[in-house]
Amino acid sequence: MAPKIDEAELARIREQLPWLETLGIEIAEMSEGRAVLTLPASKDVLRPGGTVSGPAMMTLADSAMFFAILASIGPVEMALTTSLSINFLRPPPPGTIRADCRILKLGKRLAYGEVFLYAEASDPAHPVAHTTLTYSIPPDR
Amino acid sequence: MAPKIDEAELARIREQLPWLETLGIEIAEMSEGRAVLTLPASKDVLRPGGTVSGPAMMTLADSAMFFAILASIGPVEMALTTSLSINFLRPPPPGTIRADCRILKLGKRLAYGEVFLYAEASDPAHPVAHTTLTYSIPPDR
Amino acid sequence: MAPKIDEAELARIREQLPWLETLGIEIAEMSEGRAVLTLPASKDVLRPGGTVSGPAMMTLADSAMFFAILASIGPVEMALTTSLSINFLRPPPPGTIRADCRILKLGKRLAYGEVFLYAEASDPAHPVAHTTLTYSIPPDR
Amino acid sequence: MAPKIDEAELARIREQLPWLETLGIEIAEMSEGRAVLTLPASKDVLRPGGTVSGPAMMTLADSAMFFAILASIGPVEMALTTSLSINFLRPPPPGTIRADCRILKLGKRLAYGEVFLYAEASDPAHPVAHTTLTYSIPPDR
Repeated sequence: MAPKIDEAELARIREQLPWLETLGIEIAEMSEGRAVLTLPASKDVLRPGGTVSGPAMMTLADSAMFFAILASIGPVEMALTTSLSINFLRPPPPGTIRADCRILKLGKRLAYGEVFLYAEASDPAHPVAHTTLTYSIPPDR
Repeated sequence: MAPKIDEAELARIREQLPWLETLGIEIAEMSEGRAVLTLPASKDVLRPGGTVSGPAMMTLADSAMFFAILASIGPVEMALTTSLSINFLRPPPPGTIRADCRILKLGKRLAYGEVFLYAEASDPAHPVAHTTLTYSIPPDR
Repeated sequence: MAPKIDEAELARIREQLPWLETLGIEIAEMSEGRAVLTLPASKDVLRPGGTVSGPAMMTLADSAMFFAILASIGPVEMALTTSLSINFLRPPPPGTIRADCRILKLGKRLAYGEVFLYAEASDPAHPVAHTTLTYSIPPDR
Repeated sequence: MAPKIDEAELARIREQLPWLETLGIEIAEMSEGRAVLTLPASKDVLRPGGTVSGPAMMTLADSAMFFAILASIGPVEMALTTSLSINFLRPPPPGTIRADCRILKLGKRLAYGEVFLYAEASDPAHPVAHTTLTYSIPPDR
């Protein structure tokens, strides 16, 4: 289903999260319960060896969940991460990282979801990392 | 005990992690099994409302564990996060965030530790976030 | 694909894990990379209110990952949990709980997977809990 | 400080959690924000090799947090685990396991804490496992 947020609202919220711009994070898809984001492998996020850094992948996963929530309930910019758990499964090959978030539970006050991170250059059957997240949703939205 | 890494090695490794400079992350203390790092509340990491962003705190916690490992076993720059789990306990008041990492197990191939994050402006009995992390240590160091 | 463990080996390993019998945990399906187990809602695992207890669901999820590994690599009874993370999403209605485990990475020394827990009586689109697990695989198997 | 629950209430709540009796879990200490519990190494919880099973340690950790909450806010038997994350750090030597829980945040609706698990036979500086937990606290208590 169509996301419950329009382009203008999305642009306004993106401006409040300047690290998205800094890292080059882009939204590839948004629909109810889902968001797909990409992170380019710029030199600012690479570790020695050419691997995208852990914190950059955490930022990407956290952002993917945020936008999946916005796609599901509208422009609730004060939704906040309450917990995040990430497991790195294999070093990504050089190149763009894609985060695919799916919301597993959307309650009134809490949302829970998972994010698979993939290297665009590699087999989609082999995620490079897996994340689970809980967000709190403000009661007064 | 004194950290097992000298200033020159530390400076060289910091250069490989440019996001430390970008975020203004500084090392306040390093000793065997421990590291304390700080993150200033610059506008680039603030969410609406003046709260330091979740990803910035994750980056700080991850960095604290990395330097606690380096303090314990020397300049092993290829130590990599294999998992990180963070719980946000209260919104931090405006100002610097301090991360205090303690290694709970240092094995040959894996290190496990916890990081408490505090707002400098607030009661040290009330951490703003708590993180547990596992790092893999390369066998060929 | 067919599981890499036969009925006799499976029976032998089950005997070494007496809590499976105590709780009434049964294996419903096993194939490479996957296992489905069930836990009946006996009075020994119910909390006040008729909800299956958290620890019983953790035991079920942990067992599901164990048997998914055995299905994938054979009778490696010394495979051990190194970490487990569970999120409870909604109180299960009374009745049997089903755990569906899928291995997301099977390395030489580590396996990582996720387990969805469902109440048999309720909508399969609404898991009651979600678990991620890492197991270590002994090198000398 | 003294626990906010008396012996009679404690006995009544223990009866509702029959797995405590089955496993032989005992409460060694309770005070505000803290609880220490023990689990004997009975044959029902041992894996091949004489190691206490993962699920038994999870049950112990989860129980420790439950009683730390009861010690802090009184007989709130409907407090429920919302998430648990455990890392196993070293195989415990044979013998009793002790769980030491400390609450890190006690809010109106959520409590967060950590539990260190120790083998009584071994060095207290070397926990065998580390757990973090979130509990929900019913609003109508």
